[in-house]
Parts: sequence; structure tokens; C-alpha cells
Amino acid sequence: MKDRRHSLTGYYKETNEDLWLWDDLPDLDMEVGYKVGALLHYEQSSFQEISIVETKGFGRMLVLDGTPQVTSKDGFIYNEMITHIAMATHPEPRKVAMIGGGDCGPARKALKYASVQQIDVVEIDPRVIEVCRLWMTKEADPARGELIRTVLKDGYKWIQEQKNKYDVLLVDRSDPYGPAVSLYKQQFYQYVYDSLTDEGIVVFQSGSPYYNSDILKKTISRLKKLFPIVRTYLCSIPSFPGGIWSFTVASKKWDPLEANLNGLPWEETKYVNPEIFRASFVLPNYIKNKLEEK
Amino acid sequence: MKDRRHSLTGYYKETNEDLWLWDDLPDLDMEVGYKVGALLHYEQSSFQEISIVETKGFGRMLVLDGTPQVTSKDGFIYNEMITHIAMATHPEPRKVAMIGGGDCGPARKALKYASVQQIDVVEIDPRVIEVCRLWMTKEADPARGELIRTVLKDGYKWIQEQKNKYDVLLVDRSDPYGPAVSLYKQQFYQYVYDSLTDEGIVVFQSGSPYYNSDILKKTISRLKKLFPIVRTYLCSIPSFPGGIWSFTVASKKWDPLEANLNGLPWEETKYVNPEIFRASFVLPNYIKNKLEEK
Repeated sequence: MKDRRHSLTGYYKETNEDLWLWDDLPDLDMEVGYKVGALLHYEQSSFQEISIVETKGFGRMLVLDGTPQVTSKDGFIYNEMITHIAMATHPEPRKVAMIGGGDCGPARKALKYASVQQIDVVEIDPRVIEVCRLWMTKEADPARGELIRTVLKDGYKWIQEQKNKYDVLLVDRSDPYGPAVSLYKQQFYQYVYDSLTDEGIVVFQSGSPYYNSDILKKTISRLKKLFPIVRTYLCSIPSFPGGIWSFTVASKKWDPLEANLNGLPWEETKYVNPEIFRASFVLPNYIKNKLEEK
Repeated sequence: MKDRRHSLTGYYKETNEDLWLWDDLPDLDMEVGYKVGALLHYEQSSFQEISIVETKGFGRMLVLDGTPQVTSKDGFIYNEMITHIAMATHPEPRKVAMIGGGDCGPARKALKYASVQQIDVVEIDPRVIEVCRLWMTKEADPARGELIRTVLKDGYKWIQEQKNKYDVLLVDRSDPYGPAVSLYKQQFYQYVYDSLTDEGIVVFQSGSPYYNSDILKKTISRLKKLFPIVRTYLCSIPSFPGGIWSFTVASKKWDPLEANLNGLPWEETKYVNPEIFRASFVLPNYIKNKLEEK
């Protein structure tokens, strides 16, 4: 219950002193509350309020400015689905970059591809990386972890300096409000196109296809102006509003629907496998219809 | 915000007089709140509190004893997925029954199969049927609607009287607490088996595979003692906790994975299509692993 506001955004104390985190969804007139088993960490970085809480349903949760970002129990779904589709589609991804994803979850997944020589993680806030390292990452340092290089820059500025360089780019952007808004502009998609090699592939987090199909539609139409192959795929992430979530892949040459999925690191995945890879591109009629609406 | 308890279970009034409906998920220490645009109807029937509210994210919502059941915006997903998989798998479903589903959503879907001669809807509470007819069903009475026959009985008692009768049975049961608990017993599955013809198929709502995989596991293991073909399939229902949801189909002869899906009423569906039909049987690794755990 939402009784007394806590000093930290999104947190409230009940009269019985229980602490709750509230995720407000004002567009839907909805609120989702998590009872906080323990508030493990909080700080104000130069960019945002960062906190880590322990919850019953989702385990440890990274919270930025009051909004849950990734959880220890279901974070693998997002991390695998933003990473493996593009990595498995490109026959030999060597240079990989990701914008956002300071928790390094996706970067660790990308490392499992033997061809990889370099992974650049572009994160504006160094404290997110450090806090996630401390609280979220249970695994030991991965083999070949030295291939991951952190670039502490604003993704929108960084991408403008990259030309014809990356085989795979993953855009782990937050919703199109506040700082991430530039990562949804037509100009950004042009910079992304230019940063990729002639055989390059990019994946974008493209929002809830149920609640925010306009964001998804705009992402697709902007990408189609630039890339010959643009495809949306879905997965179910229980801690995300509505569960169903979309990613959109854009590719200069390789089509995910024709990818050779043999010999890839499926034995280490917890969500995706070759059948899920293909099934994720199948859209329910209501989403197809929304995307076709003028 | 949860300020003052309303006389109706699950509803609270804020100090500013806004009314909210709260769905408590105590197993997860979570709460989901919907601001109520309008409380359209409420009553205490002989069995439960029935209410109908208007919400922003999900439109009209049927609420029983404070728990959201079906919404006008995403109810088609549940209704289509509990109905079409079995109906499309059986080559000639004539006699169909459903336990629960008093909103008649699934029955209307089943009517679209030309072979159908009779649909028995077994619902314990006549007021659910009447309230849904009044507030939830926007469509006109369907063609051949006279084939739908309502049986006002407790499903567990009714099923014991049916022998070798139905081609398709849909078990639209609520969670295994309170009145629905008998619909999860081994004995119930035996009665279900006996109610079906030699080529009969049954589908059960089998819970969240993320939050309640034990219910799903138990459903599968009990069905496997009786039926040669038992398969679980998934869909994404935004208004359900966690979004991802499971159904389990058990069949005496026809295998959904080998179903001939041509010539069936896909042009009228909003969620399922032949590709979704097949993709729904593909399970993410983490669910496969949970189901294989001893």
C-alpha cells in the first residue's frame, strides 16, 4: 500500500513500516507495486537515482529513477533475446557494440560466439556498471571477458563517430522519454546504418506491442527507409508491463528468417533455442493488424 | 493509491475520491492497481461478488470476488487460445462442452466450426452469464447461437454424468483455490477422460508457467496417466500476471502438432493463425527445464 512517500523516487512506506516500490503506468491509469524485502543500495549518480532491491517475485531488481529495469529472475529473457537473434543471424560477427546495457548482461551473451573479437558497451553512467557489477552479476567473470570494453559516452554522440565498423549493434534503449528520446529519431537510425559494415545487423528494443504499438510502428517505418531487411520479433518478459515485448532487427544483408542456427551456443541459453528463435517472428493477428494500420 | 477500503472486495477509494481496483498477488508480494473509470455494475450473487468496471488500459473488466477475470480489450486472446487449438485439431468436432466460461466468449469461437451441432456451457453461477450478456458482449447474437445450451451446474458434479459423449471439452477453470479446487484433482481428470468420445480432446487452463509452474507440472503429470497425447502451449495475455500463460491439451487420438489447419475459420481471429497455432507449442528453455525437474 502506498502510504508515506520515501525520499527515493518510486518508494513508499506503509504504516507498518513495510517498504514498497511502485511502478506507475500513467498512460494506462495503472500501478504495479513490489514489496521490498531489502533495499540493498541506493545512490544519486550524476545522471539518475540508482537503487537495487530484493523482491519476492523477481529477486534482485535494478531500479533507475523509480522504474524497474532488469531483475535477477527474468533478466535473462531480455538479455538473450536482444543479443542472440542478431548474433546468430550474422555468420561471423567480429566487432559488436551495444548502446546501453550497462548491466553487461547482453555483452556476456555475445561473448559466447567464437568469432567475436571486440565488444564495445556504450553506457553514459559509469555508476550503473559498477552497481550492477556489485549487486546483479552473480556469475564469475566470463572467459574472454577482456574483449568487453566500456565506453563512457552518450550513445547518440558516440554513434556519430563510428563509420562502417560494426558487424552487430544492439540498441538497449529505454522508453522514448527524457534522455533516451534521441535514440528514436530518424537521424539516429541513419547514424546506426552508417556505423555498420556492409553486412551489418542492428537490433532495437522497440517497446510493448500491446500498450505502445505506435513506438513499434514508427521504429519499423523509420528503419525501412534505410535497411532492406526489417523484422519484428516478440518475447514474454514477466516483469515488463503486459509481459509481451518487441524487438526489431534491421539488416543490410543477412535475413534472420534464413539464418543457419546450427553450431551456435544454444546449450547455455535459458530462454532462446532454435525453435524459439523462429517462433519469435510469428506475430499474433492483432499485432500484425496494428502494424498494417495507416 | 490504496487509501480507504470500499465495501466491495478489492476496491479502494483515494482521498481525492478516485476509485481503484487492486489485484493482490500475495505469493509474490505484489499488487496491481487499476484506476476505475466507472463502476458499471456490482452485485452479490449466491456464489460470489460480481462487478464490471471500465478501465483505461483494458476497457471493460469482469471482476469476481475482487479478481479480474476477462477484459474487453484482451479477452479475445484467452477465448481464442482455449478454443481454437482443440477445435482445429479435431477433424470433425460435433459435440462440444465447456466448464466455466460463463461469459460465453469461448462458446462463440467454437460456433465458427461448421461441424458443430451442440455446445454445452456449464456454469455454476447464472448471474455471471447474465451480467456478461448485459455488459461484456458487444457482438450481436452469433449465427447458430441456438446451438449453445447453458447448463447451470457445478462442473465437477456435471462431468460425472457425462460418458463417451463429447468430441471437444474446454475446461475454463479458475486458479486452484476455493470452489475450483476440485477441478484439479486426479479424479476430475478421470471423469473428463470418461466424458470424451474415443477420439475426444480436452483443453485445460493450466496457469502461469512463470509464477505457478507446479500447477502446470501437476496438470501434465496427471493427464499423462490417462491420455496418450498431452501437450502444453503458451500465449501472451497482457492483463494476466506476468503476461505469459499456459494451456494444456490432452487427446485420445488427434495430435495438435499434426493437425491439418487448412479451411478453418482463421479469417475471423484476432490472435491465433496457423503460424501462431504451431509457435504456441514451442517452449522457452526455462519452462522446458522446470517441467523436466523432478
